[in-house]
Amino acid sequence: MNPHKNIYFIDMLSGLHQSPIISNLKTLSVIIGTISPISPIQPQIILRRNFISPMAEESLRRSLAEKQSTIEARGNAIRELKSSGASKSEIDDAVKALNALKLEKTSIENQLKASISSSGGGDTNDAFRQAVVNTLERRLFFIPSFKIYRGVAGLYDYGPPGCAVKSNVLAFWRQHFVLEEDMLEVDCPCVTPEVVLKASGHVDKFTDLMVKDEKTGNCYRADHLLKDYCKEKLENDLSISADKAAELKHVLAILDDLSGEQLGAKLKEYGIVAPDTKNPLSDPYPFNLMFQTQIGPSGASTGYMRPETAQGIFVNFKDLYYYNGNKLPFAAAQIGQAFRNEISPRQGLLRVREFTLAEIEHFVDPDDKSHPKYSEVANLKFLMFPRGEQLSGQSAKRLSLGEAVSEGIVNNQTLAYFIGRVYLFLTRLGINEERLRFRQHLPNEMAHYAADCWDAEIESSYGWIECVGIADRSAYDLRAHTDKSGAQLVAQEKFAAPKEVEKLVITPVKKELGLAFKGSQKMVVEALEAMNEKEAMDMKAALETKGEVDFKVCTLEKTVTIKKSMVSISKEKKKEHQRVFTPSVIEPSFGIGRIIYCLYEHSFYMRPSKAGDEQLNVFRFPPLVAPIKCSVFPLVQNQQYEEVAKQISRSLTAAGISNKKDITGTSIGKRYARTDELGVPFAVTVDSTSSVTIRERDSKDQIRVNVDEVAAVIKEVSEGRCTWADILQKYPAHTSASADDEN
Amino acid sequence: MNPHKNIYFIDMLSGLHQSPIISNLKTLSVIIGTISPISPIQPQIILRRNFISPMAEESLRRSLAEKQSTIEARGNAIRELKSSGASKSEIDDAVKALNALKLEKTSIENQLKASISSSGGGDTNDAFRQAVVNTLERRLFFIPSFKIYRGVAGLYDYGPPGCAVKSNVLAFWRQHFVLEEDMLEVDCPCVTPEVVLKASGHVDKFTDLMVKDEKTGNCYRADHLLKDYCKEKLENDLSISADKAAELKHVLAILDDLSGEQLGAKLKEYGIVAPDTKNPLSDPYPFNLMFQTQIGPSGASTGYMRPETAQGIFVNFKDLYYYNGNKLPFAAAQIGQAFRNEISPRQGLLRVREFTLAEIEHFVDPDDKSHPKYSEVANLKFLMFPRGEQLSGQSAKRLSLGEAVSEGIVNNQTLAYFIGRVYLFLTRLGINEERLRFRQHLPNEMAHYAADCWDAEIESSYGWIECVGIADRSAYDLRAHTDKSGAQLVAQEKFAAPKEVEKLVITPVKKELGLAFKGSQKMVVEALEAMNEKEAMDMKAALETKGEVDFKVCTLEKTVTIKKSMVSISKEKKKEHQRVFTPSVIEPSFGIGRIIYCLYEHSFYMRPSKAGDEQLNVFRFPPLVAPIKCSVFPLVQNQQYEEVAKQISRSLTAAGISNKKDITGTSIGKRYARTDELGVPFAVTVDSTSSVTIRERDSKDQIRVNVDEVAAVIKEVSEGRCTWADILQKYPAHTSASADDEN
Repeated sequence: MNPHKNIYFIDMLSGLHQSPIISNLKTLSVIIGTISPISPIQPQIILRRNFISPMAEESLRRSLAEKQSTIEARGNAIRELKSSGASKSEIDDAVKALNALKLEKTSIENQLKASISSSGGGDTNDAFRQAVVNTLERRLFFIPSFKIYRGVAGLYDYGPPGCAVKSNVLAFWRQHFVLEEDMLEVDCPCVTPEVVLKASGHVDKFTDLMVKDEKTGNCYRADHLLKDYCKEKLENDLSISADKAAELKHVLAILDDLSGEQLGAKLKEYGIVAPDTKNPLSDPYPFNLMFQTQIGPSGASTGYMRPETAQGIFVNFKDLYYYNGNKLPFAAAQIGQAFRNEISPRQGLLRVREFTLAEIEHFVDPDDKSHPKYSEVANLKFLMFPRGEQLSGQSAKRLSLGEAVSEGIVNNQTLAYFIGRVYLFLTRLGINEERLRFRQHLPNEMAHYAADCWDAEIESSYGWIECVGIADRSAYDLRAHTDKSGAQLVAQEKFAAPKEVEKLVITPVKKELGLAFKGSQKMVVEALEAMNEKEAMDMKAALETKGEVDFKVCTLEKTVTIKKSMVSISKEKKKEHQRVFTPSVIEPSFGIGRIIYCLYEHSFYMRPSKAGDEQLNVFRFPPLVAPIKCSVFPLVQNQQYEEVAKQISRSLTAAGISNKKDITGTSIGKRYARTDELGVPFAVTVDSTSSVTIRERDSKDQIRVNVDEVAAVIKEVSEGRCTWADILQKYPAHTSASADDEN
Repeated sequence: MNPHKNIYFIDMLSGLHQSPIISNLKTLSVIIGTISPISPIQPQIILRRNFISPMAEESLRRSLAEKQSTIEARGNAIRELKSSGASKSEIDDAVKALNALKLEKTSIENQLKASISSSGGGDTNDAFRQAVVNTLERRLFFIPSFKIYRGVAGLYDYGPPGCAVKSNVLAFWRQHFVLEEDMLEVDCPCVTPEVVLKASGHVDKFTDLMVKDEKTGNCYRADHLLKDYCKEKLENDLSISADKAAELKHVLAILDDLSGEQLGAKLKEYGIVAPDTKNPLSDPYPFNLMFQTQIGPSGASTGYMRPETAQGIFVNFKDLYYYNGNKLPFAAAQIGQAFRNEISPRQGLLRVREFTLAEIEHFVDPDDKSHPKYSEVANLKFLMFPRGEQLSGQSAKRLSLGEAVSEGIVNNQTLAYFIGRVYLFLTRLGINEERLRFRQHLPNEMAHYAADCWDAEIESSYGWIECVGIADRSAYDLRAHTDKSGAQLVAQEKFAAPKEVEKLVITPVKKELGLAFKGSQKMVVEALEAMNEKEAMDMKAALETKGEVDFKVCTLEKTVTIKKSMVSISKEKKKEHQRVFTPSVIEPSFGIGRIIYCLYEHSFYMRPSKAGDEQLNVFRFPPLVAPIKCSVFPLVQNQQYEEVAKQISRSLTAAGISNKKDITGTSIGKRYARTDELGVPFAVTVDSTSSVTIRERDSKDQIRVNVDEVAAVIKEVSEGRCTWADILQKYPAHTSASADDEN
């Protein structure tokens, strides 16, 4: 085990930094990831890995190529020896030497294979993921949708425990954001008319590049085919040169930034064909990822299934602003389904065609992005990965939000406040804070209008996964809908007293301009009026000193001479009673399904059964998200105990605590194992009619509690009003050596 | 006010009972409704109405027609008098008599107008609905979706208070059904592949009949046009005869049962044209109401937005049965969006293109539909409207569920149990139990496979609205998916000991049959094998006594003679270890949006302001569903009080109680009015720093409570652990004559 976790990353980054295209880091961090083999029993070693540096890989590829050419040269030499009639002993010696060389080559090949397969820890990760996914599927946390009809790629059902986890996550989201931050929650339809998504840009730009099998019409994502080709070559073709390997790695790194033409050129260069048929492929072209439909029967009204929930909030801005008493800032929130008609979904539960989003749009005065509750998060300290660290090849580092804001790393207090709240939300759900980082977008990753963007990335067996995006989108969205709809999506700030403001006034003297420029007059007037304050004041100064000035009129593509008589420029004082402006929006957007999947991985571990003959699966969900809070078992099959179990179950249900009775005759150890595998944090075992034991899942500690106190104890600890440690203090430990603790 | 609420209904029904088509009652009950003018201040008079019986209307129409023809005859007579040169006095007398007749006619016309407009209480209902809907829209309970783009018919957003009500209703649904009944909740995608909806029948049968304007292509629902025509004639054309009026009413009553051809014929008969252009219309043809889309990019995989959530449960039956330990009965549940691409949505919030359903599929052994918790609901007594009462023209009556089951009115205990649970659910939400009835489907309303169906109907300003359907769908759905998918969606009952069962064994003797029937042998063999037990035993008896028997072979379309030698029929005893069967499913299906809309109407009332100068709106939501549980007001603008208000608000939030501060300088009376209009049940007014007042919305009672107890008191009463009456006992009343109670 080599703990140099980030060497590979650093090397790749510095290499890329020198390349002309540096817009690849996002992809890169996903591809090379910092994927870890996870030891579920010892979570503290999660961040280590088997590792051979890429430098080693490169030198192995070079040695292999050298060895190969030496072997070829020696082979030729032997043939020459033979044809020139050399002595047998001479030939034998040469063959012996050649065989030794071949052995050395095999040894290098083996080292290279080991190097490739260990970088990224692929096998260990795959095995871990398989263990998690198998458990999830067997216990119906999820079910491939429409399974009996052989399913549909990218569609999954939440089965009973998955559905309960989801509903708990959403309830906590509502408490943590909507209720605690006093947000205005809305609920808009999924079916959305085209005009809305035209304004938002989705109709034109929400696309992936696709290629078609020219004979069968089968469709593929162009970047997937190129990625598969490069990975396949890198992993399985030991004969490629170190230079070729570097080239392929570079292609993988810049994949997301290739244009359709560049992708098409690469596919052609590498001779990539349709994987299923080996037929030639079309050139890449954009495929819109929205599910399209028709609203109403006429066929005249195109609609789409919304790709995000945010647009429903933006179009309601005016009403929501009014509801909030025409005051800023305020936040609106929405939880709902969103859709993405993937060309060919991969990555299991992480890349799906329908998913639940929870989105917040916090509207704020662009001139004042302070946040009243900022001080509550300023001291939080966690892994952040600012732009500077990414570009200079450093790794994520622990920063306090307060430092990040005061050093200008995070753009403003409100953005920082939400980053902090997201951190609290995710870690309280049970996301391992060692495997959570906030990565800042690089300038080229962000839209031109965005002020700053941070992704909450969670490390999983697939690498670092973007689960929450927190973006300061400036006034872009409201402006886009104002332009398209004509509705003024703006806010007003009424001044306590009228304010005197200085306004630039440019008055072209049309008569003079007409005489001087005749037919071009209009363009000159427009150019004069379009000057900004600095340009105008410079012109004013020049006219006053020199009487005339050169002035470039772009629309005429020439420079003209402006005389003092042709324009008057002044600053006038005006009284204004209010300020009208388009608010900025800060948008935290949560991929609920991704968060839940990462939570599954972070919560999963295995431990040996008591007999030591098998590994048992456990999900260490906190009570907050556990699908069922409590199991209730009679120790043995016995009517009295079953009656008590029923009574306890009823009292738990009445208290709103989800619970599950298991009155099968299975051994208590097996019943514990079953319930551990569902992540149930507490198990009540009825072994008398007056008091019972409560067992905590991870510690396996047991306490004795009176039957009529059980519901209250479980409720308190499930709802987070006290911890298991508090409970342990209060109730006597149960230390029976009997069969009831065979797990 | 005439309290004969159901006379109209009875007459219509008995009239219809004589008509050949009696399948019209459902429509009828919606059209003529039992719509009531609602007095929000005195809910006890809700069920009364202004009323003139249809008999009066009919006799008025007849008098009017008689009067008209007398007038015409007299007119002719006068013309004859004139042309025959009668005396002026003779003519004057005749004209005078004619004018008297015309006055009488006008009087009858006025009576008839009054009769038409009062039946159904249309105006009062419309005014009440307008008041509710205006309040809902002004306070953002709902918002027409995409309003700034002029909206889309049939799509609505839930604004902040509406969204909170919805989320409270769903949370209670989860507690009341999923948790208390131990159901398996699932969450499946909206996007559904065609094969699933082909199996369920939706691809072929989920349609409405549509006509097109032959020139413009505008689309209309055929039944809407016919309905509009009939209503317009009945309401505004006083000249139609009583027979014509009866015919039009009959058409309205049978509207839902007309085939495309019948509808087309009626449209032609009445000369109905496109309402917008007066162009001719196409013949009616079925339009599928599902939103269609394509899954993936190839165009080869058609999908639909699901029209209901139930199919997601059926296709998962096998996994869910396994999850439940391969035991019946069990119920699965799902909450989610469903879609219906209406041709032209009407009825505002009741008929929408996207809506939330909450559905339960309770799987049960068809041979044992008893329910273990049946006794908990058997004594519930409420309005039921069984088939017999509908067909014999009686009205809904109060029945206990126990009676209904023991008298065979409700098919089985499990169905009855869910009817009872639905009753409890709706009334606990705040639905007025006087305006809630359970109406049984008539035989022709039910699918052929259904064993029994009941709708929970809630009376609103639109009439009685189906809000929950509770159907025993037998094994239909599981069988349909078994047939289509090949997956065996069945249950097993393992016998404790092998059971000896008698099985009918029919063994055709092929040699004899071949000789006798040659080429037709195969059909005869199949017909013999297809006999049921009775047919086979009858044949056996006949063969034993007479040696041969006539036997009709349908596939041959003739009767053949079967001799004793041709078939052996016996009953054999076999040992069976288990029974394999397709479970029956009992399906309660909740239209959440409709329930919420009816709840709004049932909760809305107006009361005069203290000054008596205006009517104030109030929603009397129970705390369970209220969007905000508590308002917090400082009595006057004052930093100390605001600090206390903040502190109380924080403590409420921490306890998970939604609350809203109002620190504006508005008078306390106006602030109470604002919060009453949102249905907030409790208001805390800070008028000192140690103790505050809590006011209950409907009674306006106030109590004094210490600041640090407020959150606990509000939590208890909001979560239903105690009532306001309990609280009144415990805390001193606040009886200030000061300005803080000006409402």
